[in-house]
Amino acid sequence: MYTYKEITGQGEQLQKTLEIVENLNLEIGNVDQVLFTGCGTSYYIAASAAKYFQTVTGVFASAIPASELFLHTSSCIVPGKKYLIVAISRSGTTSEILIALDHLKGHANLSTMAITCNGDTPMATAADKVIALDHISEKSVVMTQSFSNMLYGLQVFAATQVNSTHNLNELKQVPQLVADALTKEDLTKVVAEDLTKTRIIFLGSGSYNGIAKEATLKLKEMTQTECESYSNLEFRHGPISIVDETTVVILMTQLETADYDQALVKDIQKLGGRVLTIGPTPEGFEADHIINLTDEISDLNRHGIYVPYLQLLAYQRAIHLGYNPDKPRNLTQVVKLS
Amino acid sequence: MYTYKEITGQGEQLQKTLEIVENLNLEIGNVDQVLFTGCGTSYYIAASAAKYFQTVTGVFASAIPASELFLHTSSCIVPGKKYLIVAISRSGTTSEILIALDHLKGHANLSTMAITCNGDTPMATAADKVIALDHISEKSVVMTQSFSNMLYGLQVFAATQVNSTHNLNELKQVPQLVADALTKEDLTKVVAEDLTKTRIIFLGSGSYNGIAKEATLKLKEMTQTECESYSNLEFRHGPISIVDETTVVILMTQLETADYDQALVKDIQKLGGRVLTIGPTPEGFEADHIINLTDEISDLNRHGIYVPYLQLLAYQRAIHLGYNPDKPRNLTQVVKLS
Repeated sequence: MYTYKEITGQGEQLQKTLEIVENLNLEIGNVDQVLFTGCGTSYYIAASAAKYFQTVTGVFASAIPASELFLHTSSCIVPGKKYLIVAISRSGTTSEILIALDHLKGHANLSTMAITCNGDTPMATAADKVIALDHISEKSVVMTQSFSNMLYGLQVFAATQVNSTHNLNELKQVPQLVADALTKEDLTKVVAEDLTKTRIIFLGSGSYNGIAKEATLKLKEMTQTECESYSNLEFRHGPISIVDETTVVILMTQLETADYDQALVKDIQKLGGRVLTIGPTPEGFEADHIINLTDEISDLNRHGIYVPYLQLLAYQRAIHLGYNPDKPRNLTQVVKLS
Repeated sequence: MYTYKEITGQGEQLQKTLEIVENLNLEIGNVDQVLFTGCGTSYYIAASAAKYFQTVTGVFASAIPASELFLHTSSCIVPGKKYLIVAISRSGTTSEILIALDHLKGHANLSTMAITCNGDTPMATAADKVIALDHISEKSVVMTQSFSNMLYGLQVFAATQVNSTHNLNELKQVPQLVADALTKEDLTKVVAEDLTKTRIIFLGSGSYNGIAKEATLKLKEMTQTECESYSNLEFRHGPISIVDETTVVILMTQLETADYDQALVKDIQKLGGRVLTIGPTPEGFEADHIINLTDEISDLNRHGIYVPYLQLLAYQRAIHLGYNPDKPRNLTQVVKLS
């Protein structure tokens, strides 16, 4: 199974990604807004990376699906403002990314950067700057280590823009922490292999919401299980109406959100749902299952450690259902528009 | 059924909303970014309103779940930038909105505006400016005409900021166009009452994505049907793997997206899914069911006309399933955190 190796080999690859991005000169200069863009998994990288970038650099940042950059340009680009477009694509050949870059070519006040796992592609050629993570070479259709490495690469990119020693020091601990965390992979099996639970909800807030969206997509791609994602407290505002005994909620906790998360766990349990938390939790925190992650580094830099658990959960459920995680139904590695 | 009357009475109410907002002095002055915020349905209003506001005024605008404004303030607010926070709440009593406004009180460079269907509430008192739509008084738990009226009110607010005669003239046609459109309500029944379709996907791009999210929430709240939403072309990047004979896709078309939408319809049909389009479509456009909306006004201002169809679809399915749309499972009118 390529997919399994690709999920569990992430720690080592992150170390290489760190070295590559640290050694590039990616000074972006003065811009009014950075737009992170991609499709599918790469769009979810964009969602987390944009929140991270704005928090760390103080420059406005936003995430846009690549298709909207050319279909609805006027809703994305304000005339007269200076932009950096960060295009994200594992293959570097995604149609919408190429159409968007071509559409924006020659636009005044706009420069482009690409991040990809294939530096020798049309996207890399079209962009002004490139982060090429050529050491990531996934055979699986679904994106796993390419997700974590491109997100991590963009975090390092953000921290180096403002020479944020604090954030860089924390980010440098992530590869080892990911490798350590992966020794506890049995913890997700209890949820993954319980087929009486037919509806799975992923909750993550702030810069973790992109990861919740990606966890949902991974599970959907590999198993076609009914699943969805929300910002943690948004779940109470309507979607909670679907919770019953067939529902499991996977809640990404952060130090910043622990008190509110605890109350949410209880509300979900009252309706018959079960809750697995992933993240650091204070002593005495209660849920049906708890994967307690390190609080050695701050919420802002801990993303990479959650990701493999969420990918493993999808993989384990696929195996348990007798599906082939390497070749999911109805999907290809790259989407090309005809 | 309150809900039915509240859905079908929208045209008349929009006319009153127009008059109220036009007669308020809501000059916002110089700000660097406008943050639209709310919870659940109100957050989906925020998502559409932010795209609309930025497009029409050229001022950066973004949507944030109200909970994230106080849980992850540093990811929403850049120190030193000037903000207008637009708080959206039907009741004006939503806990997260009140906590967020209190949390941000006294923050330098920040002013606030509330839009609500109840002008005599803590939220309205806490905000610097208020759009009070007191003529909207829903008895139903789920939000229907409050969604369309608050979104429409914020569109009028945006257009008046920059004295955009073109957009105001188009917006002024919306109340009558909504009333006209509602004569074709049988068109959604063919999808709503087909119980062999157990999975419903709503697609909308750009400023219509918030409406797709709201359509999903409405159907989920009223019927607990499995449903989700995406930006149109994002659907191919993974989620399309779930399409089979049990799937219906409700695709919101726009003049700007017609060619790409047509190709997407065919890809969904190839996998066994059915497609209902809502929106203007060029002659010769093919789908399983087509609700052809007027192209008299531009994509930018047509939102209000789609909304009642999406709400009716949820209502009709609830009735067909024998549920009471006025009192959905597990929900209350207002979410209050204990």
